[in-house]
Amino acid sequence: MAVYTEVTDEMLEAFLDRYDLGRPVAFRGIAEGVENSNYSLRTTVGDFILTLYERRVDPIDLPWFLGLMEHLSARGLPCPLPIRDHTGSNLNPLAGRIAAITSFLPGVWPRKPGVQHCAKLGAALAQLHLAGADYAAERANSLGPATWRPLLRRCGTEADNLKTGLTADLEQTLDNIDARWPVRIPRGQIHADLFPDNVFFLDGNVSGLIDFYFAATDFYAYDVAICLNAWCFESDYTFNVTKSQALLRGYLAHRSLEEAEREALPVLCQGAAVRFLLTRLYDWLNTPRGALVTRKDPLAYWRRLRFHRSVRSEADYGI
Amino acid sequence: MAVYTEVTDEMLEAFLDRYDLGRPVAFRGIAEGVENSNYSLRTTVGDFILTLYERRVDPIDLPWFLGLMEHLSARGLPCPLPIRDHTGSNLNPLAGRIAAITSFLPGVWPRKPGVQHCAKLGAALAQLHLAGADYAAERANSLGPATWRPLLRRCGTEADNLKTGLTADLEQTLDNIDARWPVRIPRGQIHADLFPDNVFFLDGNVSGLIDFYFAATDFYAYDVAICLNAWCFESDYTFNVTKSQALLRGYLAHRSLEEAEREALPVLCQGAAVRFLLTRLYDWLNTPRGALVTRKDPLAYWRRLRFHRSVRSEADYGI
Repeated sequence: MAVYTEVTDEMLEAFLDRYDLGRPVAFRGIAEGVENSNYSLRTTVGDFILTLYERRVDPIDLPWFLGLMEHLSARGLPCPLPIRDHTGSNLNPLAGRIAAITSFLPGVWPRKPGVQHCAKLGAALAQLHLAGADYAAERANSLGPATWRPLLRRCGTEADNLKTGLTADLEQTLDNIDARWPVRIPRGQIHADLFPDNVFFLDGNVSGLIDFYFAATDFYAYDVAICLNAWCFESDYTFNVTKSQALLRGYLAHRSLEEAEREALPVLCQGAAVRFLLTRLYDWLNTPRGALVTRKDPLAYWRRLRFHRSVRSEADYGI
Repeated sequence: MAVYTEVTDEMLEAFLDRYDLGRPVAFRGIAEGVENSNYSLRTTVGDFILTLYERRVDPIDLPWFLGLMEHLSARGLPCPLPIRDHTGSNLNPLAGRIAAITSFLPGVWPRKPGVQHCAKLGAALAQLHLAGADYAAERANSLGPATWRPLLRRCGTEADNLKTGLTADLEQTLDNIDARWPVRIPRGQIHADLFPDNVFFLDGNVSGLIDFYFAATDFYAYDVAICLNAWCFESDYTFNVTKSQALLRGYLAHRSLEEAEREALPVLCQGAAVRFLLTRLYDWLNTPRGALVTRKDPLAYWRRLRFHRSVRSEADYGI
């Protein structure tokens, strides 16, 4: 569910008056997404998405996110283009929140990604990295490795109710990650949350990359590792090397991975699994009764983590 | 939240093959609605709504609901038109459910209905009643007065935890309703759930009436009573007679209310308040932890009921 903030029709009309987008024709809440309130908005001039920023998004980061989307759009990447109002602003107050209107992207996200989806996704990810290379402003990854141990501590002893020994297991994994995490591999703007529901396909090609609100300046290969976690495991948590090979080949067709990036893949994959495991674990333990969001099973990422710990080298990812 | 059933892109493509609607261009879950899964579907030929029927909707009723919508559409009412496939069917299996595609209706539902909205809603309700008059098939109201006492009994003693004495109070109200409920006033096809979120407006006029899945053959004036409950109370539960007068005048401009219908309005309004109070109460007591739907406060309807019990005659509704 992704409508936390109700927008009255009067508020919407007043908000739209700031823009050169005509009058509202239809306005429906969008079910997908869990971080922000999203509305599908049709006006007399076209289709748009209206987003009200909630919860995890720090308003201070919004100009960076929207600037990145504008930058990537201008370079031909199919990502939402933030629309500017009469004064040039792409962020405005609405219903007690900060809101933005972005362009509508066609396409359908793949509920069961296949090998071909993984290949196209890999290519799109590399194109995103290349297109973002000259976006100069940096944003530290607010869910990077330094945040994982404090997040685990905040989950407290309750984590062990979910799985006996989970806390100790994760402490040990974090020790290992800290010892092996790369330092000097190529970095730049990464999406950091490119799951299948953030990638639209149309006629077999990527038609949209959305939801840049975890984007940050970090290792490109870490973004690859996130995608390997998000796209290449089956519903029984087995790793599909055919998919990861397709994803990596798609990526490599546009951007090469240095030796150090390749070698770091196993630990980066562990880190990516831990990052999603921990935020899901925290949400699992802290989602109030009757909340609107579906709690996602943290252990789905513990199972991925177990695979990545068993990996002998990057060759196991099909590279 | 209104996506209970996930539809994969492969399932969607196979489903669309049955219809003459081109290929999918966009497919997004719609947040509004609590009974069914609704998707906004754009194809190469236009915009549609895809509905998968869940929970409360009995599949045996679906042909009646869809037949009514088709009937009303053909008579110019702005309601969703169910699309027929190559074989003439407007219902087909999808993802383990029965599903239908209907036309997309423009407009925005009024978050804070004003007097003008009430006037237009009243007129649209009368037009719905007139347009449905020659839809011959009948459907008993599965949430009519006969069902209220059993529903209260199923809520058990827990109702009194919500408000002390609530069960006894409702038993007494039901005695009064049973004694005064009309028998021979005009009846026909009613919507029975015409709340603001089921009515779209565009440029100040009604552009869409949706969600016919509580529709039934019952007293027209009971439908009016439901709308008085749904549209004419302020957020502090005070009754706004200016709005009810506007609603009734809008209605009367298209269909007159007989003396017996007018006189029955107070008890019909009590009944309508009880109907929504009881289903909300039942849901409140039976919504599992972590469910996707927002539980709606049953006592909002107890406060409305209290008003209707204080009414001396139909004149208090501004008629």
